[in-house]
Parts: sequence; structure tokens; C-alpha cells
Amino acid sequence: MSDTRPHVVIVGGGFGGLYAARGLSKAPVRVTVVDRRNHHLFQPLLYQVATAGLNPADIAAPIRGILRGQENVSVILAAATAVDLAARCLVLADGSLDYDHLVLATGATHSYFGHDEWAPVAPGLKSIEDALEIRRRVFLAYEAAEREPDEAKRRAWLTFVIVGAGPTGAELAGALAEISRQSLASEFDHIDPKQARVVLVEGQDRVLPPFPPALSGKAQRQLEALGVEVKTGVRVTGIDAEGVTFGDERLPARTVLWAAGVAASPLARSLGVPLDRAGRVLVQPDLTIPGHPEVRVIGDLAALEQDGKLVPGVAPAAIQEGVYVARELTRVVTGRPARPFRYFDKGNFATLGRGAAVGELLGGRFSLSGFLAWLAWLAIHIVFLIGFRNRALVIFQWAYSYVTFRRGARLITGGPPPER
Amino acid sequence: MSDTRPHVVIVGGGFGGLYAARGLSKAPVRVTVVDRRNHHLFQPLLYQVATAGLNPADIAAPIRGILRGQENVSVILAAATAVDLAARCLVLADGSLDYDHLVLATGATHSYFGHDEWAPVAPGLKSIEDALEIRRRVFLAYEAAEREPDEAKRRAWLTFVIVGAGPTGAELAGALAEISRQSLASEFDHIDPKQARVVLVEGQDRVLPPFPPALSGKAQRQLEALGVEVKTGVRVTGIDAEGVTFGDERLPARTVLWAAGVAASPLARSLGVPLDRAGRVLVQPDLTIPGHPEVRVIGDLAALEQDGKLVPGVAPAAIQEGVYVARELTRVVTGRPARPFRYFDKGNFATLGRGAAVGELLGGRFSLSGFLAWLAWLAIHIVFLIGFRNRALVIFQWAYSYVTFRRGARLITGGPPPER
Repeated sequence: MSDTRPHVVIVGGGFGGLYAARGLSKAPVRVTVVDRRNHHLFQPLLYQVATAGLNPADIAAPIRGILRGQENVSVILAAATAVDLAARCLVLADGSLDYDHLVLATGATHSYFGHDEWAPVAPGLKSIEDALEIRRRVFLAYEAAEREPDEAKRRAWLTFVIVGAGPTGAELAGALAEISRQSLASEFDHIDPKQARVVLVEGQDRVLPPFPPALSGKAQRQLEALGVEVKTGVRVTGIDAEGVTFGDERLPARTVLWAAGVAASPLARSLGVPLDRAGRVLVQPDLTIPGHPEVRVIGDLAALEQDGKLVPGVAPAAIQEGVYVARELTRVVTGRPARPFRYFDKGNFATLGRGAAVGELLGGRFSLSGFLAWLAWLAIHIVFLIGFRNRALVIFQWAYSYVTFRRGARLITGGPPPER
Repeated sequence: MSDTRPHVVIVGGGFGGLYAARGLSKAPVRVTVVDRRNHHLFQPLLYQVATAGLNPADIAAPIRGILRGQENVSVILAAATAVDLAARCLVLADGSLDYDHLVLATGATHSYFGHDEWAPVAPGLKSIEDALEIRRRVFLAYEAAEREPDEAKRRAWLTFVIVGAGPTGAELAGALAEISRQSLASEFDHIDPKQARVVLVEGQDRVLPPFPPALSGKAQRQLEALGVEVKTGVRVTGIDAEGVTFGDERLPARTVLWAAGVAASPLARSLGVPLDRAGRVLVQPDLTIPGHPEVRVIGDLAALEQDGKLVPGVAPAAIQEGVYVARELTRVVTGRPARPFRYFDKGNFATLGRGAAVGELLGGRFSLSGFLAWLAWLAIHIVFLIGFRNRALVIFQWAYSYVTFRRGARLITGGPPPER
């Protein structure tokens, strides 16, 4: 039995891709979702895995499981390597897929601004593996410090530098400060974890650059109250296994985390259409690419200007684009005209620690800071974990951590263990 | 301020080492626990991590966290490489530790009976990394099968062989059968996961050789009811990436798991005392080694015969030995005579799947099978998770899995992801 419905191929099982697939559940199409991972990742909480507050499976769910029960969807675990626009064919590492409509939602990865040699010494945070590697480095650093007799070397083990003070960097810095001040405070004999330095370095002149300046100031004060040293207007010029250089200052540090730059997934380059500096596809107002109304690009892979500014690379934008694309595709295959996409900025939150956060609502018309912002952030994230069977577990773990200051997932795993 | 209390060094933070450390909390000694991992592992449930029922952090807890609050204990993350008996010194990969009393509790690892070339193609189950690697292979096999057009190759992807039908092998086989029959049943388009073969191969003439023969028969029938093919009296002569050979039979299988042999930790060899065939230390009735009353060996690293049979390598034995050693050390440092160790066999359970288990109590005088045994197994494991903050979480996850047949931790992680 051959299926004559138009074939929609969606590449990427992130927020954009998943919402597009779900939105097509009743459309007269067949859908194939392709991802090189078997799981969808709730990326806004990935820093919690990196800092041992949550388990990987608390914030990741198998794509197959999320889409089970949707009759017109297939899921394929495969790496997409290129798009052949002329042949309407998605090239995979081990095969290919013909499409009638293509939705590209492969997101972004780290960018080291031409300094790829920094990657091994300053891991970024995009995947479960990244998070576990960061967790490993952070907790190993305390163990190494505990056994290090030399004072200067010990201080380098107890210095944590986060490069980039966007939401991810600020969240990481706040969580690392809490680990030193609270979670580990009384567990060592030879070091005092409270003496650890957590240094947040930002090239621009304030933390959380996407937020209004007043909120940046409040965020910085909250971070400093948590014990984070904030250095703004400072450009990193060197990173190696022993420390970080900015200008003529050298900071010895054995743990450096990268939260500064993102670059769009390399799949975009194979399209042969104009990209922006970060490698994102410059899409039309209906998220298609020039000359190819059958190809749509959404989420962090797309660059779309609206009212003079870029639609931000955040989960709500990807979700709105996924929902829009599903609706548009339904209109197109049933013969109705296309309508342009409109991003609605409901608000934006960044959490900094226990009871510390900032947020703005409706494009900056309202702003929140401190405990109230933190509660709002918590509520929003719990609501958006809908569809994850783990929501109750996550709430339980948070409540537990909140009451006890402990971090339950403090395992050092991965990498070859030393011989015993 | 120098500490004049005798120094007890405990190597290994498993059941034996932890119970020894805890038992010394009020003794006039200072204790150092050395482990190359930062976490204690609740090994009886490790197969649940391998089969995606539980998260790593559900069954592992930082040793530092478990022992926090015990004034006389230090914890060191380090690899012990040898014991210098004459100098009373434990050699570490990066240093050394002088001791007055030494407790070795480093456990066991896999043994491939001289076929170390099987290790990469047939991983065993001893660590969190092992469990995640098995999980990765199992779920990748279904993904590969879904995309494999060739019928014979697809069957090889859907054939899972477990070598060794002791408790670990039987538990793995039962869980893999449930994954194919229940968890994944309706998630694929091109394959029927229910067609997967789970083959349990055992060299002896029955499954669960440590149990009485009548229970072995019951266990085999329960396994077969779950969908496991049981092959007993069959010796594996070859394993490679394409399958398994036993005698003149060849079974194409892309996923082979090793649950057959264990070997004691290599640290034992550095003692220069008699070992048994599996490399375990032949200890005295008080668990010391000949000529060195200050060195004690416990848990899977020790070989002790009692009433004509070996004390088994199970968690309750290690716990009893740890408790005993702590009491003995307290007696010795306070000038009282030593007493011999006595293992009390309370019982032994093996779980096979949802509502399926076998168990014996008090040295085989009572036996249980089926749902009742499973409930008893569950109750015992929940009680022994005491001290793990995650107990409530684990119960919650089990209850959820029991009701829904889903497996929450079905993430494929680790290893380099393919390029996108």
C-alpha cells in the first residue's frame, strides 16, 4: 500500500521540530522526524544537569515516546548531512529521504569565535554529554583541590571561570556559587569549598545583554550576593588548561566553561542561500527560503528580523515557529494562501540561583526581579515540562534541594576511571 | 595539631567499605576512605539503569555525602595501585597513605576467562558507565533495525544475547524481554519490537546456579513466560561484532552482554598472599591476611569458606563483613581479643521482571516464587536503599513504570554523536 499523502520531513527534534510535528497530527500529510539523537532535550534546564541538580532523564525524553500515538509520524535516528534542493532530497550520513516539504530545525552549537583550540579546555553546554562533562570537571576540581598541597595550585583548582554572561552563563555561575557556598560547604577536610571563586566574564558592558539595562544591574547584584565575581567589558584573549587571559590579566583556573557564542548547525551551509554571520538562514517572512516555498527553517537555525530586531534564539520563539509552520503547511496542502509569521514576545526570564531571578514581560513593559521573578520562572518551567512524564519528579527534586541545599545527582562519571 | 588516634584506611566505597566506615563512627580512630569513584553504587539495581528503568543518580550517591557528619572520616578520590605491607603504606596512583589498619574492599570486575578480546563486543555490568553503554547499545539496536532493509541483518539487530544466567544475567534478560514486549511495542513503523529475540545462555545445566534446583526451574519458566529463550549447558566459544558461537551453532546478534565471570580487583595481587582462582584473597576466619592482623579484606575481594561453602559475593555478605570489621577494629584498638566472622545467610532473591522473581530464605529452608517473591524483593530493596535520598523517587519511578509499562530513562547518550 503506497501512501500518496505529501511527505513532510522535519529535521531536528527540539522545540521547533516537535511542535511542528505535533501540529501536523490532523493534516493530510505523512511526517518523518529525523534527529541524530533519540531524545528531545528541555534545554532551558540543561544547566541543572551540569550542576548536579537534575538527572539527564528528568529533562530529556525519547522523541519516539513523545510522538507515539500520532498516526502520521515516523521517527528516524540519523544524521542529516546536506539538502539537495533541486532533487528535493535530504541527504543522510547513511542514506537519503525524499520530501515534498522540508522543515529544518537543527538549532545551533557552540562557537569559539575562531578559537577552536579552546573547545577542549572550555566546554560549552548544548547536550547531555556536555552537561555531564561539565559536572565531572566541577566536582573533580574540588576533589583535586582537597588533595593538592600547593597553595597556588589549590587556588587554581578552586577557581571557576564562566565565559559569557547571557542567560546560560549567568545560570551556571549562580549554580556554581551555590555549590561552593551550600552543597559542598561541610564535606571536605583540607579545603573550604566556600573559598572557591566563581568568576563570570562578559565582553559587553553588562550581564544578561538581551535584557533591559535596569534588569542587568539587578541581576548583577543578585549574582554578587550569591558569591559570583562579575567582570563585564572584558574580552577573553586566551584559554588553556591552566587558566584564562583577558587583556594583560592572567587568572589561573582549572575549570573554564564556555557560554559565549553560538553558531547555527552546519546543515544550513548546504542550502546555498544567504546566511547571517552566525550561520543562520535569512528566511522570508513566512520562514521559507528564497525561491523554495517547500523549505522552511525554524528555531535557532533561522534568522528573521521583526520590528527592527532579530527574533531571539529562545524556546518560546522556536515553539511559535513550529506551531506556525504546522498551520501553514496544513493551509498550503489544502490549497489556501500563506500568511506571514509573527513572533509574540510573552516575556523572558533568567534564573540566577535559589530565589534569585530576573524577568521581563510583554517586550519589556513589565519587569520582575528577586524571589517573585524566581517563582514565576519556576511556574513557567513546570508548565512547559508538560509532556514530560518526569514533571512530578523534577518538582520533587527541586523541593528537596530547596529544603536541604543538597544536590542529588553529584556523580562524577564518564571518561576512563583510574586503575585500582 | 597532630592526631594520635590509629589511622584506619578503607579502600573502596562499596557496601563493605561504607558499612565499615560507618561502624567506626564512635571508635577512637581516624578513618580515611579511598575510592577511585566519587560515588557509592547500589549495584543490585544497576541492571535497571542499563535497561532504562532508573537514572544513574537514583542508585548512586556521593561517598562524601553519605559520610558527611561523621567527624572521624576523611574521603579521598584516588586510585590505589598497591599495598606495601612491610611499610604499612597504601600506594596511590598519585601519592601514598600510611595506615595502622587497612581494610581492603575493592570488589570485583568482569572476567572474560582469558578472552579479553570479547570485552569490546560484549560489555559487562559493573559501573554506571557500563550500564549507560549497555543502554546505548540496546536502544540503538532497535533504531538500526528500524532502518535496515535487509531481513537477515534486521534479525541480527533484533537479537540480544546475554551470556551467563546468574542473577545479573537473568535480571537483564527479563528486563530486555519486557522492553521488546511492552515498552517499545508500538513505537516503530518498519519493525515489530515484539519479534526481538532475547537469548540467555548459561554454561551450567540450569539458570541461577547459586539457587536450589527447584527454584532454577521456576525461574526458567518465568523467564520463558516473559519471552526469554533460555539455553543451558551451552558454552560460548566465540563472540564478535556479528554474533555468538557456541559449539557448532552460530547465532547472528548485534548486541551481546556479558554476565558470566567475575575476577577480584587486581589490588589483591600486590599483597603477595595466596589467592583463589578468581583472584580473591584467602582470608583467615577473622578476615585478616596471614601474618598481618592489621590488614583485613572484605566483600567480593575476600574468599572465605564457611560450613564447606564459600561466603557468596552478594551485598548482604559485604555488609555483614563491613559491620564485623568495624566492631573488631574497635575491640582491637581498645585491647580486647578478636573473634571470628560468621556469615548469616538471611536469604537471596533474584528478580526476573514485572511480578516475576524467585527467592530463598534462611539458607534455602524456605523458598518463594512469582509475584510474592517479587513483592518481597521489592520490599527488601526499598529498605536497603535507606540512606539514599532518592528512595521516594525510585519508588515513584517504579510505580509509574509498573502502571504504564514505560521506561523513563530511555536516552541514548555517550559516544560521539554523528555529524548533522
